[in-house]
Amino acid sequence: MSKALKVAVAGVGTVGAGVIQNIYDKSDLFEQRTGVKISVTDISSRTKAGRAVDISPYRWHDNPLDLVSSEADIIVETIGGEAGIALDLITKALKAGKHVVTANKALLAMHGNDVAKLAEENNVSLNYEAAVAGGIPIIKALKEGLSANTHQRLYGILNGTCNYILTKMQETGGSFDNILKEAQDLGYAEADPTLDIGGFDAAHKLTLLSSLAFGVPVNYAATSVEGIEHITALDIAYADRLGYCIKLFGLASRAGSSIMQRVHPVLLPPNMHGASVSGAYNAVIVQSDYAEDSVLVGCGAGRTPTASAVVADILDIARGIKTPVFGIPTDKMVDADFAPLDAHHGRYYLRLCLQDKAGAMSKVTSLLAEHDISVENLIQKDQNTENSRHVIITTHDTSEKTMQKALKDIDAIDYSVAKPV
Amino acid sequence: MSKALKVAVAGVGTVGAGVIQNIYDKSDLFEQRTGVKISVTDISSRTKAGRAVDISPYRWHDNPLDLVSSEADIIVETIGGEAGIALDLITKALKAGKHVVTANKALLAMHGNDVAKLAEENNVSLNYEAAVAGGIPIIKALKEGLSANTHQRLYGILNGTCNYILTKMQETGGSFDNILKEAQDLGYAEADPTLDIGGFDAAHKLTLLSSLAFGVPVNYAATSVEGIEHITALDIAYADRLGYCIKLFGLASRAGSSIMQRVHPVLLPPNMHGASVSGAYNAVIVQSDYAEDSVLVGCGAGRTPTASAVVADILDIARGIKTPVFGIPTDKMVDADFAPLDAHHGRYYLRLCLQDKAGAMSKVTSLLAEHDISVENLIQKDQNTENSRHVIITTHDTSEKTMQKALKDIDAIDYSVAKPV
Repeated sequence: MSKALKVAVAGVGTVGAGVIQNIYDKSDLFEQRTGVKISVTDISSRTKAGRAVDISPYRWHDNPLDLVSSEADIIVETIGGEAGIALDLITKALKAGKHVVTANKALLAMHGNDVAKLAEENNVSLNYEAAVAGGIPIIKALKEGLSANTHQRLYGILNGTCNYILTKMQETGGSFDNILKEAQDLGYAEADPTLDIGGFDAAHKLTLLSSLAFGVPVNYAATSVEGIEHITALDIAYADRLGYCIKLFGLASRAGSSIMQRVHPVLLPPNMHGASVSGAYNAVIVQSDYAEDSVLVGCGAGRTPTASAVVADILDIARGIKTPVFGIPTDKMVDADFAPLDAHHGRYYLRLCLQDKAGAMSKVTSLLAEHDISVENLIQKDQNTENSRHVIITTHDTSEKTMQKALKDIDAIDYSVAKPV
Repeated sequence: MSKALKVAVAGVGTVGAGVIQNIYDKSDLFEQRTGVKISVTDISSRTKAGRAVDISPYRWHDNPLDLVSSEADIIVETIGGEAGIALDLITKALKAGKHVVTANKALLAMHGNDVAKLAEENNVSLNYEAAVAGGIPIIKALKEGLSANTHQRLYGILNGTCNYILTKMQETGGSFDNILKEAQDLGYAEADPTLDIGGFDAAHKLTLLSSLAFGVPVNYAATSVEGIEHITALDIAYADRLGYCIKLFGLASRAGSSIMQRVHPVLLPPNMHGASVSGAYNAVIVQSDYAEDSVLVGCGAGRTPTASAVVADILDIARGIKTPVFGIPTDKMVDADFAPLDAHHGRYYLRLCLQDKAGAMSKVTSLLAEHDISVENLIQKDQNTENSRHVIITTHDTSEKTMQKALKDIDAIDYSVAKPV
């Protein structure tokens, strides 16, 4: 007779319903693949009404915390939220010796070190493949498939909503606001889109990937974040004219013992990894000493890709596959020296709005020269409104610190009509 | 005290040397990641001279079969060859209760079912991540990361040598022979390139992926194979003119209980998965019911990416991760109905060389019409040599069987100067 494994699902929303359906449909296939009979036994959600899956076969609990005392071996948390009931549930479940599978990147980015320790102390799994890029098994790739490597750099498109908006802006020339509205109508963006378009969701995910790649504690506070909300149709058009597309990237890199974690829009030439990744797709590129460049592309979110990742985590538990939560045990992690964004060197894209007066441009270029910033491209646009015109500048390598100083100076000159971007 | 795991390496060529170096360099990192002290203890190769790694720390064996009686827990086989000493070694090692890690796709494509059974009977691991696309953890993705899915289709660029040649032909307009010669000089192609350019290596890999994706026995004989050796600079130029690039694809698909496995060149529009994968890179695209499209791109071969995959397999054994060799136990596999290529439907590209005479073209088009094959594009080139001219035709959907009949008829007409491609 096969072994059996019982699963409780907290939160029967889009993802939770997908998980329940997946296990219901494929129970026999999973038994072939793992040798274990897996079934959902207990569920909990805010209301019984309106669930997108038949809930009648399962024991219902009004309070998700009651799942901890159910007969389930695994608690699946799809409630969401960086603390509150989700953190309560995960903490109690781990302490009760239950395995936990979660898709909650915000919670892990904030409390990852604590819950990882709890999982270790109680000798249970805490799996979270669904927290980053549902359709891409990137957590497993970093912990297992690429584990013979020392990773140097990891970057990618980690938020499907932003990539959808940027792709549509590029395809249609539409404005940010209109396309955001359209994405909201289609269900690709939340009613309150701040977490996505502000870059915070991507930053949660990047923080987890950085910890996995470099074996350092989870440190969300060390991730610098810039979103896509200031990007205009003009920027997209200028980038295109210069031969680039605009993507929101999360990037984590190591130089010696120093780690840098940052999320911000980038100008990408068409032959670079990630440039061809469009719509709601995610992409993660890992640069390692042995495997060199590995590129993984897949659906970022949505009911079935996220359920696919949650259930893969459950199948791992069924097979007895257990690895440290962030790749190495928490007591082996070395607290890294997280470098501030100031230290970043790179090329920059600026959009300025200047008064249409003699001397305005020369003032800007001389300010850049004073800061030792060398201009690569400069596009001066025909008159914009009344007395102002847009100026687009791309620079050669400089530091973030220098650029911020220069921007402050430029913003302060009389000729500057709007905040430089 | 940590547990210890001892590794013997058979074949100290490019890959074997990379594995030895990797474990030597990263022993401490691997102990952090797995909790196990991993070391190479015994090695064997044809000659001691000329090894690309310091072999002095290891016990040397002239006969690789002697590794089976060494103290090693794991035998790494990098000897190669679809049978012979490699098969002998793997068979004996499994029977002796040793885990086996191999990069040998030819052997697994031919004897995969037998050695998988042996591994099961002796309750040991037989891992082969390095057999397909070294830098891409695709075996693990199919067995674990995407294991909540029912897979519908799997395809990709599985041979780096072919992709390098096709990419160079496209970039430079050079001839197949010249670029093959160049690839041989650079070490990207073997002195005898048949296995690569004939599509056989890609077919070995595709056969393994198909078994993993669909849970069917390994069946190399069911894989139809067409290589790239007939592709000319003209084909590349015409494809480009029609808006396509040419790639060698391996494709496995399931329709009901019927599986089709095929390797052949394809015309790829630039926005399709895989079109932007150039040079020696490999790509695998998996289409599944839950994860939808997952795209994995990485280095196909070479010392370090292949070593990365071999060592990942060793780390899995160290962590006690053990999954069925082809995803489900051999006794659970259902013998599939492997469809012949005849049954394939698709669009086709033809290059004909016709006599430059009135009636030649009309004869061809009427032959196609007789077979109910509808023409999508037709390019008639200026005179080629003396009295012949090339004609390029792309067709709408038809079956392989119909196309083969039509080609036979076209080849038979008086106007045909060279074999149609």
